[in-house]
This record gives sequence, C-alpha cells and structure tokens, in this order.
Amino acid sequence: MPPAPAPGMVAAMIAPLLVLLAAAQAAAVPAPSDPIAADWKPIPDDELMVMTLGDGHRVVIRLASAYAPEHVANLKRLAAARWWDGESVYRVQENWVAQWGDPTEKKPLPADIVARPAAEYEIAGFAPAQRMRKADAYSTASGITADGWPVATDGKAAWLTHCYGMVGVARDVSPDTGTGAELFTPIGQSARRLDRNYTVVGRIIEGMQYLSALPRSGAEMGFYATEAERTPLASVRLASDIPAAQRPHYEYRAADNPRFGLAIAKRERPDPPMVAIGASVCDVPLATRRVETGG
Amino acid sequence: MPPAPAPGMVAAMIAPLLVLLAAAQAAAVPAPSDPIAADWKPIPDDELMVMTLGDGHRVVIRLASAYAPEHVANLKRLAAARWWDGESVYRVQENWVAQWGDPTEKKPLPADIVARPAAEYEIAGFAPAQRMRKADAYSTASGITADGWPVATDGKAAWLTHCYGMVGVARDVSPDTGTGAELFTPIGQSARRLDRNYTVVGRIIEGMQYLSALPRSGAEMGFYATEAERTPLASVRLASDIPAAQRPHYEYRAADNPRFGLAIAKRERPDPPMVAIGASVCDVPLATRRVETGG
Repeated sequence: MPPAPAPGMVAAMIAPLLVLLAAAQAAAVPAPSDPIAADWKPIPDDELMVMTLGDGHRVVIRLASAYAPEHVANLKRLAAARWWDGESVYRVQENWVAQWGDPTEKKPLPADIVARPAAEYEIAGFAPAQRMRKADAYSTASGITADGWPVATDGKAAWLTHCYGMVGVARDVSPDTGTGAELFTPIGQSARRLDRNYTVVGRIIEGMQYLSALPRSGAEMGFYATEAERTPLASVRLASDIPAAQRPHYEYRAADNPRFGLAIAKRERPDPPMVAIGASVCDVPLATRRVETGG
Repeated sequence: MPPAPAPGMVAAMIAPLLVLLAAAQAAAVPAPSDPIAADWKPIPDDELMVMTLGDGHRVVIRLASAYAPEHVANLKRLAAARWWDGESVYRVQENWVAQWGDPTEKKPLPADIVARPAAEYEIAGFAPAQRMRKADAYSTASGITADGWPVATDGKAAWLTHCYGMVGVARDVSPDTGTGAELFTPIGQSARRLDRNYTVVGRIIEGMQYLSALPRSGAEMGFYATEAERTPLASVRLASDIPAAQRPHYEYRAADNPRFGLAIAKRERPDPPMVAIGASVCDVPLATRRVETGG
C-alpha cells in the first residue's frame, strides 16, 4: 500500500491485535468508545429524504425536524408533491456548495407551502450531550446533541453548524425568502460563515460523494452556464412515501452516552501526543447506518 | 438568479455602486481592504510546479520552499527527472484527500533524491504578519505569514496548517518515510488533524477543481481498486523548466500590509453582525494571480 496520510494508521495496525485479544476473552466487549446496540436509535421514516439522481445514485438526507420545523414541513410538502422530480443540481461552486431545485425559480410551488417562512437560523437553546473541549473560531462553545446534530453557541443564541454535508435553505437577500425548494450542501473546506445566517434543515448521511464530486462550474457563483451541465433529479421522496418493500431504514448513533464522549476525546487528544491539538465540532464523526428492518 | 447562499451578496450588490462612485472620482483608489499593486509579489519560477493531467487540465502548486526545504528540494529533483510523468492520481477518498504519485511504490527514485529526509512537520517559528482574532480548536493562535502561508502554534512549536488545497507528503508510519514522491491534498471539510504530523510542501493555487471533483473510490482508504479509475499525470514540471514562451508566471498577495489585515477583519466580523462570529485561518482567502509577464 502506498504511503498515506492516515493518522490512525498505528491504531489501525494495533486494532487487529486487540480484536484477537478480545476474541480470546470469554465474553468479548466492545472497546469503550465503540457504540453498543443501545447507542443506535432509529431515524423515523418521515425524517429521511431519498434523492435519486438521474444516473440512479442515491443521496439520503436526514431531516432536522426538531430544529427547523417550519422549513422541514415545507420540504415534506415539496417531496409529497413530487415537486423536485425532473429538477436538477444546477450549481456546484468549487470549495463552497452544491445546490439543487428549480434553477428558473418559475415552477409553481405546491398550494400548501408556507411561501415566506420566518428564518429558523437559531435553535431553541444550546444543550449538547457532548461539548467540544476547546472553543473554535466561530463560537464560544460547540458540541453534539443527544440526537446527533452539531451545534454551537455564542453564549446567547445557539444554532446548527454548517459542516461539510449539512443541508441548508438557499434564499435571496431577505431572510424569509427561502421556502426550502432550493437547497444546498457545503462541499469544501468550511461553510461556517453561513452559521446563523441560513436555515439548516438536514444532513446528508449517504451518497454525499455524488454531489461533492460533481464538476465545478466556472461561471458566476458556480451556477452552471448550460442546462447540459446540470445533474437531473429523478425523484425526491420521504422514505415514508416509498413502498414498504423498497423503503430504506436508517439509525443514528446517539451522543448521550460515555462511549460517544470517549470517541470525541480520542479525536481531541490524539495519540501520539506530538500532533496538533484539538478537534472542531465538524470533525466529529456523526455515524448513521442503514438497517435491513426497523423504523 | 436562484436563491443562493452568498453571505457577501449585499456586498456584491453594493459593489457595483461603489465602482460607479469610484469611477466618478478624479483619482479612484481601491477600497481599504483591496490589494494595491505593491501587495502583489512574484512567485519564483522554481517555486511553481505545473502538473498537467491526462486530459490537459493543469494543476499549479506553489512550493513552500522556505518551510520544508529538504522535501521541496526532493520535489524539484523528482520534477527535473520527469519522475511523475505517466504516473497517476491513484487515491481519492471522500471528505479526506486526493493523492498522486506511483501507486506501486516500485518505480526507482532519481539518484539525487534524499531517500529518508527528516520530518519537516514544524517550521522555524510562529511569526505571522496577520494573526487571527480568535484561537481555533487545533491551536492556541494562527495567522498568515508575510509571504501568504497559513500557520498555527501551540505556544511552543509552529506549523503550516492542512487547509483545503494544501499539499502534504504522504508517508508510511515512520516520520522519515516520505520522500515527496507521493503527495496529497485535502479535498473535504478539514484535515487539520494532520497538522504537525505530515510535512506540508505547498498549496494548489490553480486547478484544484480538477482534483476535488474526481470520482471518490469506495475501496479501502480511497485507493482506486482498478487502474482504469486512476487519473493519469501527463507531466509535472517546475515552471522554470518550461520553455520561456509557454512558461506561466504567478504572483501572490503579500500579507504584511494593513489592507490584508482589513480583509481578514471583514471576514471575522461580518456585516450584518447577527451572524456567526469569527473565521478560521483556513477561511482566509490567500490570493494569487497569473500574470502575463513577470518572475
């Protein structure tokens, strides 16, 4: 195997030995930072949005129903109306965002849509199950909620953070101009400067690579100059609207347990110690998994 | 234009007005945070590495000669020997890195290569021309050097930071196993946890989108499972080794001036104030530009 940046490589080499040691024990137990069965919680079928691209690849979005209820309700109405079917990913700007919906802004919205929902940039309060050890450049504290969302605060307000793969509501200048019909996800270094300035409605939990690897547009703000460059959306459905036999089910790793805390601590205090200190809230792996039955 | 996450949108709308106003003045002067002619400095031709992909697209790397001299000297020897010609980008791991060189690790290295250079993870000292206002999660302070490189410190050591688009030396477990023949660049959220653990040798200043948009490999650690998936490298040359008529010239924006400081301050204290606070060192635009003559 060629040389590789793999800070966990030593750990990876030791891991098989640990597995052997564990197997030798009468009752093998998971390492302290590994999840146990109780750490996995189902994501409700109606909080999963399955976006199928024209080439059949699937992008699965977990919806942040509890944090942006009005916008997520709009997303559910748009999916129920099959509003996105035949629309496209029409903007891919290098080191910034991929964005999808209707590039013409002329397609009529479903009648039950809230046309000008109030901004939901902030959430009710800052109550993470796990706090990051060190403040970052964008907030005074940050952490992960019990239900697995990255959050930050300035000591007064709190908000979901624009980490790579989070899904936000695109809008015009006025804060109430985003219905949820146009969505974006950060595909580069960071979009934390959008925090508290855009409504976060979800996170991509599968298929991110089908958006992040799309060709970048060199045109203004990354909007593709031609229709041919766009990536078609074949269909966008809530999982709950997919026939039971084909319906996917997912679980998230809950953060309100000491195993999650240990996993963060490992990342924040890497071994060997002669390496960079700390980790940001966007570096915390927020694990989800597909399960064959559930929900 | 469809709704768009564009935190600078108000600024963008106002900018044309400012241009008109400026044009109306007898002697238009740049806005205080814009560079002036003296802010642009030439990048020496032998500190520019031009990597031409099989499809003709070019990726241009500025070399960090002053910060990792032994490894950069190796890179120059490899380019002079045309060692990378016909090799490939053989690893693209989602939200992590793109990596190139010889995937077999069997190609003999040029005779003048330092086969086991000592690690150059740290730089001589922390002396940025511009300091970030707030510490980040990975360091106690960070900033931009006069010659336009992002740096951080823990109060003792200092290092170049693994921002998106920086170029690092891949290696095996031992710190002296990276010659520079295998290189990588972060293509996702952040690779700051590689800080002080890998030698940084440069930064991609043009053509990053031809690496960041490559198809991700689902195989272990993102190494393409088949040769057909790899992206060929047609040639890799120092600009100084390209015939004068075809040779590109670039300049960087120097940071040791109040205009650069104001540009950072604008990003750290966005307007309107009701948005996330701060900015990380990796958010600072490190401008370069191609010039028709120079060097």
